[in-house]
Amino acid sequence: MQNKKVAVVLSGCGVFDGTEIFEATLTLLRLDQLNCNVQCFAPDIMQHHVLDHRTGDLMPEQRNVLTEAARINRGNVHALAEANANDFDALIIPGGFGVAKNLSTFAFSGTDCEVNAEFSRLVQQFHQQKKPIGMICIAPTLLPKILGPGVSCTIGHDAATAGKIDEMGGLHIGCDVDNIVIDYEHKVITTPAYMEATRISEAAVGISKLVDKVIDLS
Amino acid sequence: MQNKKVAVVLSGCGVFDGTEIFEATLTLLRLDQLNCNVQCFAPDIMQHHVLDHRTGDLMPEQRNVLTEAARINRGNVHALAEANANDFDALIIPGGFGVAKNLSTFAFSGTDCEVNAEFSRLVQQFHQQKKPIGMICIAPTLLPKILGPGVSCTIGHDAATAGKIDEMGGLHIGCDVDNIVIDYEHKVITTPAYMEATRISEAAVGISKLVDKVIDLS
Repeated sequence: MQNKKVAVVLSGCGVFDGTEIFEATLTLLRLDQLNCNVQCFAPDIMQHHVLDHRTGDLMPEQRNVLTEAARINRGNVHALAEANANDFDALIIPGGFGVAKNLSTFAFSGTDCEVNAEFSRLVQQFHQQKKPIGMICIAPTLLPKILGPGVSCTIGHDAATAGKIDEMGGLHIGCDVDNIVIDYEHKVITTPAYMEATRISEAAVGISKLVDKVIDLS
Repeated sequence: MQNKKVAVVLSGCGVFDGTEIFEATLTLLRLDQLNCNVQCFAPDIMQHHVLDHRTGDLMPEQRNVLTEAARINRGNVHALAEANANDFDALIIPGGFGVAKNLSTFAFSGTDCEVNAEFSRLVQQFHQQKKPIGMICIAPTLLPKILGPGVSCTIGHDAATAGKIDEMGGLHIGCDVDNIVIDYEHKVITTPAYMEATRISEAAVGISKLVDKVIDLS
């Protein structure tokens, strides 16, 4: 029985302007099956925008990332500013456009993107403490900006996104949806999930492997 | 390999004013693992209200049930009015307060509640065609109103809610979170999920059993 403490960072609620809900749920499910103690966090900032998920249309309203993220985990999400690596054994970040729109500007600025300072600080803190970091779907694109050049990671097989990771100093490695890429030196584990998945059961396989390896290395 | 066609009815996005996200995700995961073809539906109506899931406070805004439900399933949700039992082998309804606030008025009117007419019509249609119906968490409370007296079902062990089911003409049967209640005569399968669950892995066990039995009876 493991009782590892794991921080999970969310970035809203819904794939197109926040956290990918299935990826977050599958992450939390596997962590719970491994008897981990989990705390979710999200930045207390406004979303970049709000999209109608059926039509893709911009909705004329504003929503808070932390408030919306709380919908996923039944209300139990803390402000990202309160997160401290000292309190945890590992960190996991599910994907969704929220990572590229709210936790960073990657969706708009690509290789010139900026990363949310609180988020960057937290990832660096886990890295400095040699604690494992799992990143899912589009999230690995931020690794070179946060940890500097030389981190191996995957977003699957999308050549354009992979090229941007390499351009920023990362080492992209192609990977199928049911697998993970492990950078043992940096203790970074990544999986493509919905960068490649065509159905939820596919995403579940890779995410479960990622969670298992993150806990194994913690 | 099964290729059963299953309709899933959502009622928003978030446990306190819509669909319980984990319950919906776990339902869709298990259906996909069983190779089912799934279509999600939600009513094109305004939510009863919008709650801040961290604080429980009422938020001064309005949201559409169908638009918000689309966040869960990556945009792929159709209007409930388009749902027809002729096109499907089975029906499943995850829980969350959306069932008691948007699909009905049970949260406010209890045993005097009214059920959304489109939703009631769809459930009755599946019942008339002798196709299995799975209801999760708080959703079974609506069965007596929709199908009339005599349906056996569970919401777990909550005496007050169980009493209301019996008062409306249902036959409540106590059930643990990792189990299901099967009414073979009515082809109705129910499980408590977050009416009893204290963690996501508990909800997953009961929901997986429910989905397996729904597909088995279809």
